[in-house]
Amino acid sequence: MGHEGRKRLVVVGGDAAGMSAASQARRLSGPDELEIVAFERGHFTSYSACGIPYWVGGDVDGRDALIARTAEEHRARAIDLRLRTEVTELDLDGQRVRARDLESGEEYWTGYDRLVLATGARPVRPPLSGIDAPGVHGVQTLDDGQALLDALEEHPGRRAVVVGAGYIGVEMAEALLKRGYEVTVLDLAEEPMSTLDPDMGRLVREAMNGMGITTVGGARVTEILTGGDGRARAVVAGGTEYPADVVVLGLGVAPETSLARAAGLPTGAHGGLLTDLSMRVRGREDVWAGGDCVEVLDLVSGRERHIPLGTHANKQGQVIGANVAGGYGTFPGVVGTAVSKVCSLEIARTGLRERDAQGVGLRFVAVRIESTSRSGYYPGAAPMTVKMLAERGTGRLLGVQIVGREGAAKRVDVAAVALTAGMTVEQITALDLGYAPPFSPVWDPVQIAARRAVKAVRDAD
Amino acid sequence: MGHEGRKRLVVVGGDAAGMSAASQARRLSGPDELEIVAFERGHFTSYSACGIPYWVGGDVDGRDALIARTAEEHRARAIDLRLRTEVTELDLDGQRVRARDLESGEEYWTGYDRLVLATGARPVRPPLSGIDAPGVHGVQTLDDGQALLDALEEHPGRRAVVVGAGYIGVEMAEALLKRGYEVTVLDLAEEPMSTLDPDMGRLVREAMNGMGITTVGGARVTEILTGGDGRARAVVAGGTEYPADVVVLGLGVAPETSLARAAGLPTGAHGGLLTDLSMRVRGREDVWAGGDCVEVLDLVSGRERHIPLGTHANKQGQVIGANVAGGYGTFPGVVGTAVSKVCSLEIARTGLRERDAQGVGLRFVAVRIESTSRSGYYPGAAPMTVKMLAERGTGRLLGVQIVGREGAAKRVDVAAVALTAGMTVEQITALDLGYAPPFSPVWDPVQIAARRAVKAVRDAD
Repeated sequence: MGHEGRKRLVVVGGDAAGMSAASQARRLSGPDELEIVAFERGHFTSYSACGIPYWVGGDVDGRDALIARTAEEHRARAIDLRLRTEVTELDLDGQRVRARDLESGEEYWTGYDRLVLATGARPVRPPLSGIDAPGVHGVQTLDDGQALLDALEEHPGRRAVVVGAGYIGVEMAEALLKRGYEVTVLDLAEEPMSTLDPDMGRLVREAMNGMGITTVGGARVTEILTGGDGRARAVVAGGTEYPADVVVLGLGVAPETSLARAAGLPTGAHGGLLTDLSMRVRGREDVWAGGDCVEVLDLVSGRERHIPLGTHANKQGQVIGANVAGGYGTFPGVVGTAVSKVCSLEIARTGLRERDAQGVGLRFVAVRIESTSRSGYYPGAAPMTVKMLAERGTGRLLGVQIVGREGAAKRVDVAAVALTAGMTVEQITALDLGYAPPFSPVWDPVQIAARRAVKAVRDAD
Repeated sequence: MGHEGRKRLVVVGGDAAGMSAASQARRLSGPDELEIVAFERGHFTSYSACGIPYWVGGDVDGRDALIARTAEEHRARAIDLRLRTEVTELDLDGQRVRARDLESGEEYWTGYDRLVLATGARPVRPPLSGIDAPGVHGVQTLDDGQALLDALEEHPGRRAVVVGAGYIGVEMAEALLKRGYEVTVLDLAEEPMSTLDPDMGRLVREAMNGMGITTVGGARVTEILTGGDGRARAVVAGGTEYPADVVVLGLGVAPETSLARAAGLPTGAHGGLLTDLSMRVRGREDVWAGGDCVEVLDLVSGRERHIPLGTHANKQGQVIGANVAGGYGTFPGVVGTAVSKVCSLEIARTGLRERDAQGVGLRFVAVRIESTSRSGYYPGAAPMTVKMLAERGTGRLLGVQIVGREGAAKRVDVAAVALTAGMTVEQITALDLGYAPPFSPVWDPVQIAARRAVKAVRDAD
């Protein structure tokens, strides 16, 4: 397909997974061996969507800071990057994709030898009255972030309503609080952060309330009311009207796989593309996929999940880049680690929640302990709650959730590695973790939880 | 030996290992089953010696804050704790120990069914002229810390010399700097923190110099000069006189095993007692040992090491307590994790240094990378250098060293768990570690190092 014996790699989607794949492929194959064409329908490439809340909140100074590598930088490395160009059709048998230049309207076909799908995810937007009104904002792309910032400037107000209390929701609550808004967060679940068990979510809610954020659980949004100017003026949930000068949607995202499905590629229970361990789309020799459009194997439950997260997208992109350039790499799967914060509150989780464990037929014990980030006597020692799940009988670690202040979140990494290695809670009690008074109590909080879990496993048998 | 069918447990040494053992044994066995007698020659029990530098530096308010559990609290749990009472002889065949009340001078024998040796370590004090002069201080015990604080108050001065640039040395340099002293640190090695490789130690030195601490490497101390009042007035090293109003010794510690050796118990190459995995002294049915007086198995090198550290002492004490009370536990070994700081500089290491790996016949690659504690665009992102060693051929992780600012040190825990699990650097690149902009770049610094190491392993073959 390429000229003069060169192969051509076509990448659909120019953010983390796609451009990591392109960059890694370029690192391994020069332009004489591999031509690389990348299509991106937006204005930007390789940016940190995870950073948008901090840009909106004023912690990050300007949009450009979020761009890891500009279009020009990619092009300087001989990647033919076409911005504002949307791929509208995949012809897998013909090994070609149809693209449309969004500026000129021109459409054309481009052939490939190897295809990488990195089409990302689209925000969930329920079909509610008023959801498309001005003043209702998603925060999925840099363009979204800019639109929200422009709106906050052009239509200053006092009250913000955030719909959804997951990662994006709580991070946007912080951002809007920092901008001086009275913030109300509405969520269908009783407690925020439903990636945690409710007993840990309750800690998040209490802390958010303590920061002055109003949280409303069990709130099903039915309508967004608009004012005389057509702009959103209130969100209605459970029959109550929540006045809003600005509305932010943080309802999560779903894999963007419409192109791939139209071409007959396999998707899973969560709507994401299914790949093998080399990130090759199942059943296809010449198509790879990575990032927010794929499902990943959860190593703890043995099930596929959809986890849209920049760090996975980057890793998968690297693996794809190696494989399409004749190297070798695999993405073995995830254990479900995620960290976040609301102001000074840190939130972390890895592995299975109680409902996840129940859902795959595991019997387990769950323990919860209180400790501190440093030795109790050391200045800045901050409280931390650690919840741990372990399998009955075997004592195998199943999951950890942490809610605390400074120094809490990244402690979950110890559990993430232990989960990957299949360690038991007894093995965790013996781990040689770093100890000094400014960094940890003499028993690390994760190990205090593990000690409790060891006892619970014994008592349960 | 105990009365009315009770067994008697005798514990020699009332700090972390000894009192953890006593407490755990009491948790599992009531006073009707097990009598517990603990001898401690000092004034205090169960205190954090690791906290002394922070007490001296003023971060910790008062000595009592460092005492995790007082003598009264132990006694309230039916532990017959005898302070200021030194055990002077072990009669292993007769199952008894001779103790001396340091206040009254009275000596007596006490029988045991089970014996726990937790005699700790003694500071290294080379036989130099002037080393016992007033104004020369160790910082091993709470009594030492109090003596130093008293001296700083009674003999205020301007210049402090710290001898030794290991953990205690650099922590005391910080403490004295905080108290307004001009601090000079002398060390035999060229670079401070010889628990790191010299290239990483150099980063510590540069940072210490930047804080205003004078460091002198390659400095062998030959004499401590005293003034007309008999107090130390200067330290002589390499022919140079370093004036000192106070001298602090941070030359490390050696296992305190004189009693045990006199009784014929086995010690290893580093002078520590040798135990099995249950912390039972090798060759004895009724004697256990733990804490700073024992050697531990290094799981990476397969060699015994002496690592005096409170966290190991506590864990070993728990294991001993379970085993002497008829339960079961093991201490499988360590990977050599240690974290420390000098002011805002964080220092961490785990596994093998280059010289350790060479010393056990391992061939390896070593890589060093620069990254940041948070996403580069997030406020407070601080630089961090990570060095990683991996075995040639297999790619197995051998060691990690980290020098950086806030958020650097505890990242070493990921490597500690990976070492324990025997992971390769390639497996580390795939780990599902927590990512969000306030907590990490999209590739965690440890994983950036692992990626580099993967490449180095490939290139080396």
